[in-house]
Amino acid sequence: MKLNNETLQLLKRHGSVRQFQDIPVSEEQLAVIIEAAQMASTSSNVQAYSVIAVTNQALKAELAGLAGNQAYIEQCPVFLVWCADLYRLREVTKPHLEGCASYEDSTENLIVATVDVALAAQNAAVAAESLDLGIVYIGGIRNRITEVSELLGLPELVYPLFGMCLGHPAGAVGQRPRLPLQAVLHRNRYDAEATVEQVKAYDEVTSNYMRERTGGTNAAPWSAIMAKRLAEPTRLHMKDFLRGKGFMKQ
Amino acid sequence: MKLNNETLQLLKRHGSVRQFQDIPVSEEQLAVIIEAAQMASTSSNVQAYSVIAVTNQALKAELAGLAGNQAYIEQCPVFLVWCADLYRLREVTKPHLEGCASYEDSTENLIVATVDVALAAQNAAVAAESLDLGIVYIGGIRNRITEVSELLGLPELVYPLFGMCLGHPAGAVGQRPRLPLQAVLHRNRYDAEATVEQVKAYDEVTSNYMRERTGGTNAAPWSAIMAKRLAEPTRLHMKDFLRGKGFMKQ
Repeated sequence: MKLNNETLQLLKRHGSVRQFQDIPVSEEQLAVIIEAAQMASTSSNVQAYSVIAVTNQALKAELAGLAGNQAYIEQCPVFLVWCADLYRLREVTKPHLEGCASYEDSTENLIVATVDVALAAQNAAVAAESLDLGIVYIGGIRNRITEVSELLGLPELVYPLFGMCLGHPAGAVGQRPRLPLQAVLHRNRYDAEATVEQVKAYDEVTSNYMRERTGGTNAAPWSAIMAKRLAEPTRLHMKDFLRGKGFMKQ
Repeated sequence: MKLNNETLQLLKRHGSVRQFQDIPVSEEQLAVIIEAAQMASTSSNVQAYSVIAVTNQALKAELAGLAGNQAYIEQCPVFLVWCADLYRLREVTKPHLEGCASYEDSTENLIVATVDVALAAQNAAVAAESLDLGIVYIGGIRNRITEVSELLGLPELVYPLFGMCLGHPAGAVGQRPRLPLQAVLHRNRYDAEATVEQVKAYDEVTSNYMRERTGGTNAAPWSAIMAKRLAEPTRLHMKDFLRGKGFMKQ
């Protein structure tokens, strides 16, 4: 039983890339990456997603500003905006559904579309890395999601879930240590005690990692960093935004 | 510029597996697969997911029943239940947050956790397939999500997003044609006309595909199949369920 191969090595090497060389991504590379994305599983074949390849420099600069001034959005040759998309489905099914109720606006279908686009995007990330390209996911496009949506012309029932910088990496890729396997993997039943207990060891690992990276000035454990994050009232507009776009009506 | 490699070939080969050989998945295989899942990107390193490996035969049978009698859930050696998990975060951050507000219950954090678990699961799917194992995603566990959650002992702020059958494939894997690339890939701006227009050609492809697969008895195009799906009031309990679990409070 062989437990190693090229693909596993690739997955293990993954790290976010935030510096890119000034080299374009070719049309052929982009097509191969998006075609790989399309091969991901999709709930009942709904394919409820779209992806916008932003290559226009002025548009990238605007998006970078809206996402919290993340310079790598401007710097990367292609900025992919991954969108959950129930608009296409609603439009193409209309002729079949005259007079019938339809439920594209349910919370369930929001989840279906969100999962569909995430699975496709992760395949794209793996495909890109297999071609020696690098990526970083950008949740920051949800900071000012209304402006981002307007800028990209997103209709009702489409929302931008995250961006993804794509390009040729400049410099080495960093990897942060992950939670112990036992913290995320449960057997036959959720083990609430174990998952919390495992964080103690991880807090030590992350504290040491921070100390090394900051030359001793910061040794915050993971749980303290997470506390700071949870205490921030981040993107509290999301619920109203999604409703305004026609999602989660029921 | 090389546009092909082992990983791209693997991604292109993907198809859902619904028949499994009576061969166990080893502990080593499971660990490698979940470790690969953990290497996926995660929003600000929150790692807001858990996965429950169900190997108990009686439990698999119960879950199969709750998910709409999908026999492969019982047949596969390991049924993975992928959960969005903000419980662990809330518990480990509590000591740091005495008296402070915290926002784990926001719609934004529901989305963060849902994306986190989907990215991890897709890495697991790719890792499994690289080891010649097969998978199928099971959205059906949301049919009776309250019972599934109770059966697996899921606490507040944890919800089962989807299941995943894992095992050694028996027989060939089918692939359904996907939307044309131009239907999902937009340039610099969402193209509402093009995405709808592209479905016409796809409707022909899917209609022919159905006709061949059913020996001529069914030639429903994709848009008609999707219409039937959207017209079904599927899982309308999701909104109340998620709120009851402590999500989407704001």
